[in-house]
Amino acid sequence: MVLDPSLWPDSAHQSPAGGLFIADCDVSQLASEYGTPLYLLDEQTVRATADAFLSALRRYYPASATVHYASKALLNTAVAQVMVECGLGLDCVSLGELSIARRAGVNLGGVHLHGNAKPRPELEQALAWGTGRIIVDSLDELRTLSELTAERHAPQPILLRLNPGIDVHTHAHVQTGQLDSKFGLPISTGMAGAAVSFALAAPGLQLLGLHMHLGSQISALEPLRRGIVCLFEFGAAMREQYGWRMEEFSPGGGLAVPYASGDPAPSIEEYVRLLATATREAVLATNTEPPRMVLEPGRALIARAVVAIYSVLSVKRIPDVRTFVAVDGGMGDNIRPALYGTRYSAVRADRLEAAPAERVTVVGRYCESGDVLLRDVELPPLEPGMLVAVPMAGAYTLGMASNYNLVPRPALMLLRGGRAYTIQRRETLEDLVLRDLPLPGSR
Amino acid sequence: MVLDPSLWPDSAHQSPAGGLFIADCDVSQLASEYGTPLYLLDEQTVRATADAFLSALRRYYPASATVHYASKALLNTAVAQVMVECGLGLDCVSLGELSIARRAGVNLGGVHLHGNAKPRPELEQALAWGTGRIIVDSLDELRTLSELTAERHAPQPILLRLNPGIDVHTHAHVQTGQLDSKFGLPISTGMAGAAVSFALAAPGLQLLGLHMHLGSQISALEPLRRGIVCLFEFGAAMREQYGWRMEEFSPGGGLAVPYASGDPAPSIEEYVRLLATATREAVLATNTEPPRMVLEPGRALIARAVVAIYSVLSVKRIPDVRTFVAVDGGMGDNIRPALYGTRYSAVRADRLEAAPAERVTVVGRYCESGDVLLRDVELPPLEPGMLVAVPMAGAYTLGMASNYNLVPRPALMLLRGGRAYTIQRRETLEDLVLRDLPLPGSR
Repeated sequence: MVLDPSLWPDSAHQSPAGGLFIADCDVSQLASEYGTPLYLLDEQTVRATADAFLSALRRYYPASATVHYASKALLNTAVAQVMVECGLGLDCVSLGELSIARRAGVNLGGVHLHGNAKPRPELEQALAWGTGRIIVDSLDELRTLSELTAERHAPQPILLRLNPGIDVHTHAHVQTGQLDSKFGLPISTGMAGAAVSFALAAPGLQLLGLHMHLGSQISALEPLRRGIVCLFEFGAAMREQYGWRMEEFSPGGGLAVPYASGDPAPSIEEYVRLLATATREAVLATNTEPPRMVLEPGRALIARAVVAIYSVLSVKRIPDVRTFVAVDGGMGDNIRPALYGTRYSAVRADRLEAAPAERVTVVGRYCESGDVLLRDVELPPLEPGMLVAVPMAGAYTLGMASNYNLVPRPALMLLRGGRAYTIQRRETLEDLVLRDLPLPGSR
Repeated sequence: MVLDPSLWPDSAHQSPAGGLFIADCDVSQLASEYGTPLYLLDEQTVRATADAFLSALRRYYPASATVHYASKALLNTAVAQVMVECGLGLDCVSLGELSIARRAGVNLGGVHLHGNAKPRPELEQALAWGTGRIIVDSLDELRTLSELTAERHAPQPILLRLNPGIDVHTHAHVQTGQLDSKFGLPISTGMAGAAVSFALAAPGLQLLGLHMHLGSQISALEPLRRGIVCLFEFGAAMREQYGWRMEEFSPGGGLAVPYASGDPAPSIEEYVRLLATATREAVLATNTEPPRMVLEPGRALIARAVVAIYSVLSVKRIPDVRTFVAVDGGMGDNIRPALYGTRYSAVRADRLEAAPAERVTVVGRYCESGDVLLRDVELPPLEPGMLVAVPMAGAYTLGMASNYNLVPRPALMLLRGGRAYTIQRRETLEDLVLRDLPLPGSR
């Protein structure tokens, strides 16, 4: 069986015996040794994907550019280490993410802190830890930051996240650049201009540049070009008004990935080329010095590197209605099908060449009808004990995992050259009660 | 301000100083002492709600009935203890839930194990722990159970969960009784009959009765009556065919609760009366001995007992578009608005009498546009630092909480007679990395 390279890790292939191998590791053997559900991360795919971003940037925007991994897609200590070893910076959105970056030995000078609503204690700690940039999202936050930094010797570098008022055609849950959005400072209402004025007057803040993020799963790139034009025009207006110079700018992240074969998704090369071209044009049109560009891919860096492995628990055939294949994971480890209607694909992992023979719906073990992993997919005949592998499982899966039904969260293993390393161990029943305190007194 | 008693805990009221009090505890003071987001559980409301179920059953179905709390709504050690102290049994859906019941000192003989797909190791452990009933959901599970119990001295009591093929009009994610469902053994296809035949022949199993659960948030009760008729007719057919007698039956749970004032929700009394009446009628119609009835409320027992408290972090007014009030929680602690479109209500907790003055959208701190807690609600003017309280926060909130964005999960406190006890402590940054192992070797 040929695995679609747009969906599977670079190192995934069918072994001579017919099973799925990733990074020369036998997936069936890993499942039997470590249990299921099991998440497997192919390190080589992450490294190759990071290289694809970096080399495209060197080619199309040699001026100055960096790539920051948007940690919220999937973060733990080892993933932070891999990303930084790949030459990437990190984008964090909470004190929790910053603390993991620190634990991974990452210099927070190369870390950006995002978020539409950052609690004051988190901002204080981020400042104390020397976080490289804070991406300011509201006037309230700007006021807080200005208070917190008033006494600093070296001012804190910040970017302003702007809302350019641009719709991208994606799921409403992940669309962020339209005017009716909780994110960013709208340009059109004057809020962004007021923020620049305020930031320039704040002695503890250094306004380095501007930021936008139009949304996730962007497959039509044209709105990004319009967003960049907006940012640069706004930057030029601020130059006119305040003599301010934009040294850095970020068009955010949001590059779409395919979840099933044929889903629309531009290549990294196309994406970077469009951003770079649009930026060079905007630089010329506004007579600006080329600013440093910061790209912020999350999903596009990690989704394809990870495969989720489940065991079949039961098969329920309801004639003329549907065949339900129940597996031992579901919405607890991957809520994306329930939350966004994402349609994944799957294979039988222990015997790849088995021919699809039946249209089935793969459901999870969670007590809820919405707990459907794959609706109406063609799979080989399945029986309890067989393994199902779901590719494109790296982004917003474990990162959004819950303990719904008090089911422990799965293990995540990093695969490298025939060896498998646990980088996030499976949760235990003991872990589930760590925060519990018994009922006080008896009555 | 008068708090709608259908939404707020029994003990919630406005203090003379104008703030929200629950069980004579000052909510503002708790928020400042324990931080936000903070979940507050009024013990008295749980006890009164449990009593309402039990006393309605005594009145309308004196034959024999029990109430089991559907733990998946919200479970931790103290909640299990409270429920059992109230005279309830527990429904569990995983080994994790069973282990918490054990930790709470609950006799598992009074516990039922549910689930559409129970992993074999969990079934083995549930049997070893003496779980009172196993509610069997598929033929595959029945085969597994029969193997695991073949050598037992005392057979394991089971119920069969049937799928009666009845639609209830609720959210597709939580509708479970229609034929096209992952839950239950369909009657119409003959699968349920095959399961009875198999169970009766299994020496290690004692088929005690039948179970159904039509879905959640059921506000129109009539389908429950039809479901009960189905179950009893099926039971009578099995009596004819095998001489089997249904000693126990469960119409499941699913009673709707209101999330905002005026949402349709039958009273506990109406609900129990309908179930009891339908059961007595079905008993007569099928000439059956009245079986023991097991009710399984989850949401209806816990939702109203819990209030979520958030702090306002920022207010963003976009003229002619929307005012966004961002708070320090959101889809990490309550994913229900994003997942089911649930519309909650809210008040300003530190000053209840402040008059609603503005239509706002309360959003969370999570980096996602779908992270909206309350869309288009009328609230008093809000500023950073003020407190927002969201009632009806007990069911499927903390129980489905995630570490999305690596944000620690909130604390849950039990309030009783002017005192507040932490029953689930706030997660710490250290907790977030407990399962992390560093990247192996350097390259």
